[in-house]
Amino acid sequence: MKDTLNSFLMIGQSNMAGRGFLKDVKPIYNQNIHVLINGRWQVMWEPINPDRPTSGIGLAASFAGAWCANNPDKQIGLIPCAEGGSSLEDWSVGGVLFENALFQAKLAQRSSKLQGIIWHQGENDSFAGRFSNYALRLSAFVEALREQLGEPDIPFISGDLGDYLSEGRYGPYFTEYKLINEALLGFSSQNPHCFFVTASQLSANPDGLHFDAASLRKFGLRYFDAFTLRQNILKPAGDEAQRLEQIYNRSLTNAEQIAVLEIDFGSGKMSLQEYEKKLSTLKP
Amino acid sequence: MKDTLNSFLMIGQSNMAGRGFLKDVKPIYNQNIHVLINGRWQVMWEPINPDRPTSGIGLAASFAGAWCANNPDKQIGLIPCAEGGSSLEDWSVGGVLFENALFQAKLAQRSSKLQGIIWHQGENDSFAGRFSNYALRLSAFVEALREQLGEPDIPFISGDLGDYLSEGRYGPYFTEYKLINEALLGFSSQNPHCFFVTASQLSANPDGLHFDAASLRKFGLRYFDAFTLRQNILKPAGDEAQRLEQIYNRSLTNAEQIAVLEIDFGSGKMSLQEYEKKLSTLKP
Repeated sequence: MKDTLNSFLMIGQSNMAGRGFLKDVKPIYNQNIHVLINGRWQVMWEPINPDRPTSGIGLAASFAGAWCANNPDKQIGLIPCAEGGSSLEDWSVGGVLFENALFQAKLAQRSSKLQGIIWHQGENDSFAGRFSNYALRLSAFVEALREQLGEPDIPFISGDLGDYLSEGRYGPYFTEYKLINEALLGFSSQNPHCFFVTASQLSANPDGLHFDAASLRKFGLRYFDAFTLRQNILKPAGDEAQRLEQIYNRSLTNAEQIAVLEIDFGSGKMSLQEYEKKLSTLKP
Repeated sequence: MKDTLNSFLMIGQSNMAGRGFLKDVKPIYNQNIHVLINGRWQVMWEPINPDRPTSGIGLAASFAGAWCANNPDKQIGLIPCAEGGSSLEDWSVGGVLFENALFQAKLAQRSSKLQGIIWHQGENDSFAGRFSNYALRLSAFVEALREQLGEPDIPFISGDLGDYLSEGRYGPYFTEYKLINEALLGFSSQNPHCFFVTASQLSANPDGLHFDAASLRKFGLRYFDAFTLRQNILKPAGDEAQRLEQIYNRSLTNAEQIAVLEIDFGSGKMSLQEYEKKLSTLKP
């Protein structure tokens, strides 16, 4: 699998973990998309990064869906290590978040080629002047992570904090989010193989704090474009809705249909009789 | 927190991870029960060990609930590392399952006192004569794990495979499960600080493969009794239903009621208006 599976490390805070409501968007299920669990690759399901009971849709599923659309017959693996509410300081080298992400990525390297790091973080640095040395601190973090992974040139993709932040019920906490966005863009300009993605036109959950599911699906496409084109994505492409429909409308293979059926049965959503009846129509 | 949080490592296969249906039992929510995520302790929610999309109720939540009932004002932490479908061979020293569980337990040791290891595994060794050296291989595994954790005397609790196994739709695969149960009991008798728990009177999901949610709640009490009494539990106590009701009916603190409300809002189950209205009745 090492030669054929291409893995990506997911780090940052809640908007990388994902808080979009599962009921708001169509599912993405594709047996070419995997997630690292206990050091092994499983076919991805959502939520991918269950760091909290409110975990839901994130940006990584559509990122992976876009990657698969561009790389037919290849395998992608996601390594979920994002932690809700974390500050950049919380990601310090030697701390548990850094050590865990490094360990998980190294486990993944046993059976995959690490291709990129996707990062969304900054809400918890959007106050108290933390922006002033954010880019410098992020550079040190990325350099240490790349070095310890043995991947000095690995692409590192980051993204805007949402423009809705000042309006929501937590707005008073995040007065400096625009300065963090400037720091993220500046960081990407100054550091090799680092790219930045706009959150323009993306919207929030009713909490005014987390991107909603539909926005995160689009955000994932932008992360994918930044990774693939190796450039900043500073405005949304016009075809995001169509590209997402293509990902959603991909026909499931026979094996995927059987797997979806097994998940429904194994979760108690279907009786044994119904399961066996449906299964008999799928099994060759 | 290190002096006050008591942690337990969860390892084994799917019945330790938990496949009970969430809809079948009352929830257990207690801010004295934590789960290790990204190296940090979060208040526990279920599923605790999301190794598969079918993850659900396991035995660890009622284990922890019973522990809290016995240790008021103390904190417990669960370290979820169980992996569905794993054989004992899959848990070999140096393999990804062993390495990940060891790493997670060591992360936990930074901020807690590791008090025990809970194990449920064996379905995937219930064929092809694997029982013959199962106890010997399990001894080597436990010895290596204890040594690498620096906890040579840490209690290790295991449990019966379900008596339903031979009857279910996967019955033909698990012809030797009774011999594995004998091996587990023998192992516990021969190794210090190892205890064994019966699955007598416990039942299965419609798949005939996984314990159902109600059974896992009882199983957790038995694991707790084995841990606390430091002895095998070879028949069910008569008061399991009452003890579970006590755990379910514990009054939530004000902070817990607020947290439950935040989870419902953050998961999209409640509008902002409803959330703020309910919150205003709870906030002092």
